[in-house]
Amino acid sequence: MTKDVAEHGSYGSKDYHDPPPAPLIDAEELTKWSFYRALIAEFIATLLFLYITVATVIGYKSQSAADACGGVGILGIAWAFGGMIFILVYCTAGISGGHINPAVTFGLFLARKVSLVRAVMYMVAQCLGAICGVGLVKAFQKSLYQRYGGGANGLSDGYSTGVGLSAEIIGTFVLVYTVFSATDPKRSARDSHIPVLAPLPIGFAVFMVHLATIPITGTGINPARSLGAAVIFNEDKAWDKHWIFWVGPFIGAAIAAFYHQFILRAGAVKALGSFRSSASHV
Amino acid sequence: MTKDVAEHGSYGSKDYHDPPPAPLIDAEELTKWSFYRALIAEFIATLLFLYITVATVIGYKSQSAADACGGVGILGIAWAFGGMIFILVYCTAGISGGHINPAVTFGLFLARKVSLVRAVMYMVAQCLGAICGVGLVKAFQKSLYQRYGGGANGLSDGYSTGVGLSAEIIGTFVLVYTVFSATDPKRSARDSHIPVLAPLPIGFAVFMVHLATIPITGTGINPARSLGAAVIFNEDKAWDKHWIFWVGPFIGAAIAAFYHQFILRAGAVKALGSFRSSASHV
Amino acid sequence: MTKDVAEHGSYGSKDYHDPPPAPLIDAEELTKWSFYRALIAEFIATLLFLYITVATVIGYKSQSAADACGGVGILGIAWAFGGMIFILVYCTAGISGGHINPAVTFGLFLARKVSLVRAVMYMVAQCLGAICGVGLVKAFQKSLYQRYGGGANGLSDGYSTGVGLSAEIIGTFVLVYTVFSATDPKRSARDSHIPVLAPLPIGFAVFMVHLATIPITGTGINPARSLGAAVIFNEDKAWDKHWIFWVGPFIGAAIAAFYHQFILRAGAVKALGSFRSSASHV
Amino acid sequence: MTKDVAEHGSYGSKDYHDPPPAPLIDAEELTKWSFYRALIAEFIATLLFLYITVATVIGYKSQSAADACGGVGILGIAWAFGGMIFILVYCTAGISGGHINPAVTFGLFLARKVSLVRAVMYMVAQCLGAICGVGLVKAFQKSLYQRYGGGANGLSDGYSTGVGLSAEIIGTFVLVYTVFSATDPKRSARDSHIPVLAPLPIGFAVFMVHLATIPITGTGINPARSLGAAVIFNEDKAWDKHWIFWVGPFIGAAIAAFYHQFILRAGAVKALGSFRSSASHV
Repeated sequence: MTKDVAEHGSYGSKDYHDPPPAPLIDAEELTKWSFYRALIAEFIATLLFLYITVATVIGYKSQSAADACGGVGILGIAWAFGGMIFILVYCTAGISGGHINPAVTFGLFLARKVSLVRAVMYMVAQCLGAICGVGLVKAFQKSLYQRYGGGANGLSDGYSTGVGLSAEIIGTFVLVYTVFSATDPKRSARDSHIPVLAPLPIGFAVFMVHLATIPITGTGINPARSLGAAVIFNEDKAWDKHWIFWVGPFIGAAIAAFYHQFILRAGAVKALGSFRSSASHV
Repeated sequence: MTKDVAEHGSYGSKDYHDPPPAPLIDAEELTKWSFYRALIAEFIATLLFLYITVATVIGYKSQSAADACGGVGILGIAWAFGGMIFILVYCTAGISGGHINPAVTFGLFLARKVSLVRAVMYMVAQCLGAICGVGLVKAFQKSLYQRYGGGANGLSDGYSTGVGLSAEIIGTFVLVYTVFSATDPKRSARDSHIPVLAPLPIGFAVFMVHLATIPITGTGINPARSLGAAVIFNEDKAWDKHWIFWVGPFIGAAIAAFYHQFILRAGAVKALGSFRSSASHV
Repeated sequence: MTKDVAEHGSYGSKDYHDPPPAPLIDAEELTKWSFYRALIAEFIATLLFLYITVATVIGYKSQSAADACGGVGILGIAWAFGGMIFILVYCTAGISGGHINPAVTFGLFLARKVSLVRAVMYMVAQCLGAICGVGLVKAFQKSLYQRYGGGANGLSDGYSTGVGLSAEIIGTFVLVYTVFSATDPKRSARDSHIPVLAPLPIGFAVFMVHLATIPITGTGINPARSLGAAVIFNEDKAWDKHWIFWVGPFIGAAIAAFYHQFILRAGAVKALGSFRSSASHV
Repeated sequence: MTKDVAEHGSYGSKDYHDPPPAPLIDAEELTKWSFYRALIAEFIATLLFLYITVATVIGYKSQSAADACGGVGILGIAWAFGGMIFILVYCTAGISGGHINPAVTFGLFLARKVSLVRAVMYMVAQCLGAICGVGLVKAFQKSLYQRYGGGANGLSDGYSTGVGLSAEIIGTFVLVYTVFSATDPKRSARDSHIPVLAPLPIGFAVFMVHLATIPITGTGINPARSLGAAVIFNEDKAWDKHWIFWVGPFIGAAIAAFYHQFILRAGAVKALGSFRSSASHV
């Protein structure tokens, strides 16, 4: 350990505090208004996320059907997903932590940043919000909504289940890895840019993954988003292989949590202390 | 209350100050140069906003008429609206608060951040600025301006009045919710990223709403913008249902003000204190 | 004055310092390495600005000639101009102030932020850099360069000289107004976001103006950019009305300097002190 | 020297510290877990970079083959490269320094910011990561991958070797110059925006260079990116003139390191002290 401390020079005295792990069940948090306020914030944020993004998808498909170059393009769709996450994380970070995605909640739960009860309730709020958000889009333009696929995720022709699952895993890994990097108390204490920019790279991570995987799965990386569209669209092809959009993101989030907690953070330094001691004798 | 204070740990001693509510009529502010300077800043900012955005709309439609893929695309139009709000909020925040939109002014008035007199005068300055800004675009290219719709808002074919109104309500909610989140003194004191980034997510909120609702109403969410284009374009279809672009944004702003003040902020905590006390006995 | 001071509350003790006006001729600055270093930085920055942007223009026109939807689009061209200004202002702000544009230098000279000698030498360095940058693009792809217009500015068909001139004036006003807002020592002291974001809204201002006026003049708002392309392209249509791209930006910059110094800043408060005194008696 | 110190006013007492030059070989760093963790972070970051960007390229080409205006466009491809560098520099800056590019590593090695051993090991990790990242894309969609060029760099028809090499040199110069500007301890100490925004202009630099040179070479400016695609695509045209994508970036990075260290930083002030002394007598 000594060497590592020396390496950090003036940081040796640890200028940050990792909060203690969240308990699995925290009965007290259920008695606080701030807990229910966080659920409302997650519900509203996910509702707005799905409303804006699915409206963009349907609007694009409808405009480009009339005029090939009309509409905002698939680039505009990717911006809608990424940009909404940017502003919603910015707006809700101080209220609920700004998850807006069950996979993010799952990753933060695995890292013991939120309690099990909070994680489950967040996911419920997110899924309800997503359903309501897509429902609004359908209510506004029912025939266009059904005609243009309802914003539902699904495997494109020519891709196997394994590929779709893998694309969801890696895409969610990119997102949740960015979330962990942006909220790491160790990094925040040292690098002034970490907390200031935080919502922007998280939004960009979503934007990037959409650029890459819209042609493969339509890009889920958010089970609430996929569920909301599937429930409201409710045609067979939306439910076919819907499990991919839950299993993939949860695996990706778990890998990101593992990567951040055990490889990049102090946990690994401690775990591998013995390795380093012997390595220094080679 | 005790539990809630304990929850915030070292923040318990309240490191921020909510300014007192603005009076409805503040006679003294009318005697200050800074008040008139703010009106000038709102006028110029709204003028520049409409000049750049409507010029982008007309330029796009004119170029894409000659070459289907020419022009900046609807994505470029959405960027023009969002990007201008970003830079104008950045430039005028310290002078007038950077409203540039009667709906934003209305929301901040409801939250008692500005006096009634200031709110009314800002709206007048914004509307005059918008008319002058669109007027410049028409003066530069009169025939193109009229031929390509004058940047006026209106319901697209196939959408009912209710849908257009709802789209304006939700779109303005997204914008004004972001404005409240960005200017909340409680959040600014705790999270360094809140005030630093502020103009960027506000601009992005405008960008996002345009991606989603250009196909439905052309996207107003700013009554001055809609009025300016209607006055200068001045054809029947611009005035038809023009009320949507005033009523919708004002309702959306009011809901956002309510959501922020009564759900997300301390007001609710106090109002619901009795609920929480009993809840903790369940 | 008293009222105005009171209005600012705790800021009354003036927590910022306006630097003294720069002298017209500062013989001493000519003896310093930092002066020549700044000239080199302006030269290199303007060279890179023109190289990247004109290469983007030629590349887009060449690709879209083969495939209507190929290339980065006019939106991509607007991003190239705005994005380069963002990164170059970021990189050179600490060395030369990050002007990269004779109109910006002219505006800052009028506001007495730089000496006359420095202003003239910057403009020379910028123009030489621009010529070299465009020269590189021509050297790389001579036939494409001449075939696709050489990145030169010019009035589009159907626009009068007055319109072109006005478009350049307003466009440059948007840019130089943003520059003044971003570098105002009064604002920086109060609002943490002003200096942090500064290069980003300046880049966005350039992006926005390009979205709006590429269809009208190709967008100059930077005499060095227009001169560099005209010198290297060197066909009659590039020189025809070339004066627009000097006179327009200089007028726009002058108006922005006047607007910022006399309307928005303390200068006006003092000048109008008597007005306010009498107004308060009404 | 005196004059220069005086020029900086209150900064005369040097409020920053340049770290001492890194040794060529630092045996001790090989014994630390943080060194291996940095290698892992570079490997994973470069893997994700290539996976997302090459998937975007293949997805775009595949979608636009079916529908000319479908897909994210070349603008979307440029965003994918620039945006990924933004988020990956943001995520890995605190772990490995966030190079993700052998040319960046080479430039920082020349400036003695990293040891020779670290530089070589980073490059190995980056190249392996790039190969794995492109390998994933091929594994997901083998036939599309080969049909649409595999994301490999290469000279476009009509451009000579010298032009391709020059384009890579200047493009990498833009990137590495931005990296040096963003990480300069002298600037960070004075300008609050330097460290806060850092990852954003670095990402934008990559975005900009792609806008300009995709039509010429497909844009390498990152030897690991070019190698990864060439290894996995493995057709003759990918290996033909592959050396351009190593020699060009390394020359560009070397020029940027020289420009920053000897022209823009104090080194030059000292070296040219005698010049300034005599110049002041003229």
